[in-house]
Amino acid sequence: MATATSPNSLLLQNPNRSTTIHLRKNSNPARVNVFNLSPSRRNKSISITCSTTQVERPPSNAQSLDRVFNFAAGPATLPENMLKKAESELYNWRGSGMSVMEMSHRGKEFLSIIQKAESDLRALLNIPEEYAVLFLQGGATSQFAAIPLNLCKRDDPVDYVVTGSWGDKAFKEAQKFCKPSVIWSGKSEKYTKIPSFDGLEQNPDAKYLHICANETIHGVEFKDYPTPKNNDRLLIADMSSNFCSKPVDVSKFGLIYAGAQKNVGPSGVTIVIVRKDLIGNAQEITPIMFDYKIHVENNSLYNTPPCYGIYMCGLVFEDLLAQGGLKEVEKKNIKKAQILYDAIDESNGFYRCPVEKSVRSLMNVPFTLEKSDLEAEFVKEAAKEKMVQLKGHRSVGGMRASIYNAMPLAGVEKLVAFMKDFQARHA
Amino acid sequence: MATATSPNSLLLQNPNRSTTIHLRKNSNPARVNVFNLSPSRRNKSISITCSTTQVERPPSNAQSLDRVFNFAAGPATLPENMLKKAESELYNWRGSGMSVMEMSHRGKEFLSIIQKAESDLRALLNIPEEYAVLFLQGGATSQFAAIPLNLCKRDDPVDYVVTGSWGDKAFKEAQKFCKPSVIWSGKSEKYTKIPSFDGLEQNPDAKYLHICANETIHGVEFKDYPTPKNNDRLLIADMSSNFCSKPVDVSKFGLIYAGAQKNVGPSGVTIVIVRKDLIGNAQEITPIMFDYKIHVENNSLYNTPPCYGIYMCGLVFEDLLAQGGLKEVEKKNIKKAQILYDAIDESNGFYRCPVEKSVRSLMNVPFTLEKSDLEAEFVKEAAKEKMVQLKGHRSVGGMRASIYNAMPLAGVEKLVAFMKDFQARHA
Repeated sequence: MATATSPNSLLLQNPNRSTTIHLRKNSNPARVNVFNLSPSRRNKSISITCSTTQVERPPSNAQSLDRVFNFAAGPATLPENMLKKAESELYNWRGSGMSVMEMSHRGKEFLSIIQKAESDLRALLNIPEEYAVLFLQGGATSQFAAIPLNLCKRDDPVDYVVTGSWGDKAFKEAQKFCKPSVIWSGKSEKYTKIPSFDGLEQNPDAKYLHICANETIHGVEFKDYPTPKNNDRLLIADMSSNFCSKPVDVSKFGLIYAGAQKNVGPSGVTIVIVRKDLIGNAQEITPIMFDYKIHVENNSLYNTPPCYGIYMCGLVFEDLLAQGGLKEVEKKNIKKAQILYDAIDESNGFYRCPVEKSVRSLMNVPFTLEKSDLEAEFVKEAAKEKMVQLKGHRSVGGMRASIYNAMPLAGVEKLVAFMKDFQARHA
Repeated sequence: MATATSPNSLLLQNPNRSTTIHLRKNSNPARVNVFNLSPSRRNKSISITCSTTQVERPPSNAQSLDRVFNFAAGPATLPENMLKKAESELYNWRGSGMSVMEMSHRGKEFLSIIQKAESDLRALLNIPEEYAVLFLQGGATSQFAAIPLNLCKRDDPVDYVVTGSWGDKAFKEAQKFCKPSVIWSGKSEKYTKIPSFDGLEQNPDAKYLHICANETIHGVEFKDYPTPKNNDRLLIADMSSNFCSKPVDVSKFGLIYAGAQKNVGPSGVTIVIVRKDLIGNAQEITPIMFDYKIHVENNSLYNTPPCYGIYMCGLVFEDLLAQGGLKEVEKKNIKKAQILYDAIDESNGFYRCPVEKSVRSLMNVPFTLEKSDLEAEFVKEAAKEKMVQLKGHRSVGGMRASIYNAMPLAGVEKLVAFMKDFQARHA
């Protein structure tokens, strides 16, 4: 029972047994007071221990004291407010009496979740009606096979522009199912460039032109897109690591695909946006789970989808819309990236980013130290300061800061301050 | 600030702005008092609304007042204690400063999670060392293709025993990748039987013999397993809907696979247990994501796995071990099923289960009403009593109660009491 004893106080009576009180402001705690009440053995008195945890969180600008800044390349940091919402709904989703993890994928509750997720994503990217949106499994790696299996015959030529490891993997997987050519590769320059579009020698008979819009490992990002010159005018993009980080004109593409675990959700969900007229011609050897037609006809519910992951993506889409949509999101991402690249470029060579300036990724910022023997120390000291996962990909070494949508400006600012301090101590 | 004003009371001062207090006993609430405090516009007084939610939960035997009994066939009910644990860890996993959903799959935190999940599963099923355990994506439906792609050449014969819709789907998908034969089908008897093993005409040249150990839709379950008579002595089982519901001698099988979303976790995780000597011979047209060799060599981390789902499976494995392992779990499942089948069989035909008694599933209990026009009313009234998802699969109609590991005995008892009451009112 509770009574107000004064305008600013609250009396809780008979909190018997051991009791914890969490005092929260709305669902978005700025401060959490935790009171532990333990009864005496005879249950006649209570003792109180009070610990106060500051969870100061001016919107997306500061670091919660119990959180790290997580610069991982994916799975990656998610919006704190959406994690809090997921936490509050985990046990009982909106009065349904069950967790989203327990819901039949054919029940009205989950249908409302997946339909809203699709609708919000369509709003965010302004996806035209003639495109289907699919929530699948298996990562972009599955799409490396599914794309040629659905869009090509075995002997069809296709064109790949290879600007990094992921584009290269996509090309290699396609060799099993069609006749791909690499029409440009950045490998000899260690994947630090995007080609001039004019110079691309596209095959007019290619069924499609494939690019990786942002190379997660190498940090090169297409700022504009080549015009496909093949007969079907088909451009296909792996947008795994810059999906929903900025507006995209979907109508320029035949198909866009993205693993969710960078900008829009946890791992285990792959989003495919495909023009509907392209489906229905899969090769006979296409596993049914790779057949877009099956998934389009069943609204991603041919078999059990990754329900909880889709729910989380839906929360993130809500959050991106609430921020004002992708134009606003892009502004924040430009600002964060600018601060970090400036710190690198203004370090007199102490820090170096190998990527050509005009195509540097807003999402993944690779850099090295001039004194490479200090890199391990850099990563270790940063971790002590609660900035984690800064080690570069094992294939390229150095450092990499992934600063996806959900990385707060404060995270980048803290990293830059740390970089300057580290330089001052080691220059 | 908090002060104790009497042995049984607590004074909270200055709860300014809108504030919610959750009063919990330990982390496992038996009663949650929620107080909403709203300040006046001038911030000089507060108003209090108090709602009390009973969350009585004697271990696995009762229904929390805010929970439903969820008889869905999958995704399905999960253990309440593990949902509570997941809730408590969602925002910040064990002091790591991040959610499991945000962790790099190559970081030490997630590695500890997936390694413990595998280790606990190995303990539960006593999996021999010569078997690999994989945590994959794409559901059992992906395995329908992956199995022939990995274990057969294009012209190899294989044998399928088809005891329900899922076995039939597995057979049909295999037609793309090898030469499967249906050596027994229960279709003409509406999938209500399991064949006598002696009468099975196995092809000695078949690369494997495939069964579906429990047919989710039709409710027929293998109580023992046929001895494969093919040259390689290979038996393969889809155990999606009875995985970890009872002990299994893994050494009898070449490969066992299961979608997690029935007994061991949320959707989006597929577990494959495969004898290591069988891998490494995939057909050339195998998508890399379907190649067991790749996943075994990379400990399920070739690409980003469904991390959060694997974490949840790990929690469930912990819970199953804590219950005493699968022998104890099986005892509970037998008891639950017995109560429900008895209620059907003792209803003088008011309720009917079409499945042959000796092979009735412990997991999925399909039944019809003699007066079939009452079935919609049955489902509707049950839902009012917080027992949901009792409608049978759209392909067979009637009702189906899925009573997986995490369905408490109390859920089945409540359903049986409801069935008797419903019969009394409508007989």
